Amino acid sequence: MTQIALSPDQVVALRYRDPEPTAPAEWNPVLHVLHDHRSVRRYLPDPISDEVLRLLISAAQSAPTSSNLQVWSVIAVRDPERKARLATLAGDQEHIRQAPVLLVWTADLARLRGLAADRGVPLDGADYLESSYVAFLDAALAAQNALVAAESLGLGTVYIGAIRNNPEQVAAELALPPGVFAVVGLVVGTPDPGEGARVKPRLPQAAVLHEEVYRADARHAHIAEYESRIAAFYAEQDLAHSWSERVLTRLGSAAALHGRDRLRDQLPAQGFPLH
Amino acid sequence: MTQIALSPDQVVALRYRDPEPTAPAEWNPVLHVLHDHRSVRRYLPDPISDEVLRLLISAAQSAPTSSNLQVWSVIAVRDPERKARLATLAGDQEHIRQAPVLLVWTADLARLRGLAADRGVPLDGADYLESSYVAFLDAALAAQNALVAAESLGLGTVYIGAIRNNPEQVAAELALPPGVFAVVGLVVGTPDPGEGARVKPRLPQAAVLHEEVYRADARHAHIAEYESRIAAFYAEQDLAHSWSERVLTRLGSAAALHGRDRLRDQLPAQGFPLH
Repeated sequence: MTQIALSPDQVVALRYRDPEPTAPAEWNPVLHVLHDHRSVRRYLPDPISDEVLRLLISAAQSAPTSSNLQVWSVIAVRDPERKARLATLAGDQEHIRQAPVLLVWTADLARLRGLAADRGVPLDGADYLESSYVAFLDAALAAQNALVAAESLGLGTVYIGAIRNNPEQVAAELALPPGVFAVVGLVVGTPDPGEGARVKPRLPQAAVLHEEVYRADARHAHIAEYESRIAAFYAEQDLAHSWSERVLTRLGSAAALHGRDRLRDQLPAQGFPLH
Repeated sequence: MTQIALSPDQVVALRYRDPEPTAPAEWNPVLHVLHDHRSVRRYLPDPISDEVLRLLISAAQSAPTSSNLQVWSVIAVRDPERKARLATLAGDQEHIRQAPVLLVWTADLARLRGLAADRGVPLDGADYLESSYVAFLDAALAAQNALVAAESLGLGTVYIGAIRNNPEQVAAELALPPGVFAVVGLVVGTPDPGEGARVKPRLPQAAVLHEEVYRADARHAHIAEYESRIAAFYAEQDLAHSWSERVLTRLGSAAALHGRDRLRDQLPAQGFPLH
């Protein structure tokens, strides 16, 4: 909860780098924390207590879950050596080593498969592509609640999608049984104030919010406007990036997926048949 | 933010129906809103203003997004006739008709495909199964931030996974172009106080939180404990449900997926090749 001194219209304006911000209709500490999110990539070594960890997980379990299936689990990794090995597997990201905890959010169909096996009943629905999305979504909603809870306590966070770069090795490291797949990592720790993590501006709201039906007609104007706004953000860090070039490179080829182009084979191998 | 008068340990205990609750280590209004979530299925007709809608969407855009790709969009449906048609397509859920707005969160690869086409560059990475998960996760993180923002304002919410029951008709109703897929709906409105929506208890924390590596050894004990706790929740509503029976039925067969067993064909037809 840095920059608590900013006014509500300043907080919202910073999210869009809007040159003509308007004051939001309502405001409260929850809206402040949500809008003030920033990804933190430098951490102090301060530990996270068991009590705080339990609070992050109870917040996560409070998120909605499809039909109360609760098809997710989370592995809290604090052992420095295991965390370092996972960092190497996940794009060699140094902040995974620095921070005191890496939470690995998993899609977990194993709990219900075990229950079905105990009772000798089929669980054929779990074998469909749909159920993989349900479990990934359950994990994402839970993780996001944990992220918001952590940031409300002044902790920093960053998601680690690269946990999917090497799923076989990650599963082995975490002893994941069939039916459990590592969806995303979440680093949690005390931000290093020396980093000065910033709020990254997003596309103009009109680019993502459609009224009644989807409309793409103003896409060019929205992206052009965004390029000029995010250029100012990059310039403050002495960078000359273009958003368009970066995202087109990121999805330009199978090779740019850093191994994640193999997911269609890896998920079935880990117990998600994707029928 | 109902039940604001409950103490922090009571709020957390209600989430687990824990007979021996302990006071959380820290507490703030954000943790209160997160833990107090309940799905609302009866609404008053009070409208949602444009100003509040904008605030929910700026909160959504403040959520993390993989590599800042922002591969999601949201369609706000307020027209009563369109909303009623979507209700019929999504499991005939009456609360979609009652509430003033249905937000349909979509995975959106069309924006970047259009950008790539404009520049004459490939976007082959977008065609992989991995990119569908990235877009579904992006949409989920954004939706969850909007849900938390809405609940902080005293509004009620409920997710609509059944928006995936009939994806072709939903895409036609919302004019979704290829590369845009409706991931989940979110009903937002003023809760009907007559419903008295309750906090649903979740599995004991030890069932979903694993330390260092995944451990399934205590699964039976956790589920047995949960059955007794959620039985009390159901009994208060004069219901005699078993969680195990409900979830095993929900995933028992392809037919129980209510059409979502066809997703592996429908997603490619909507522009997600899933390579």
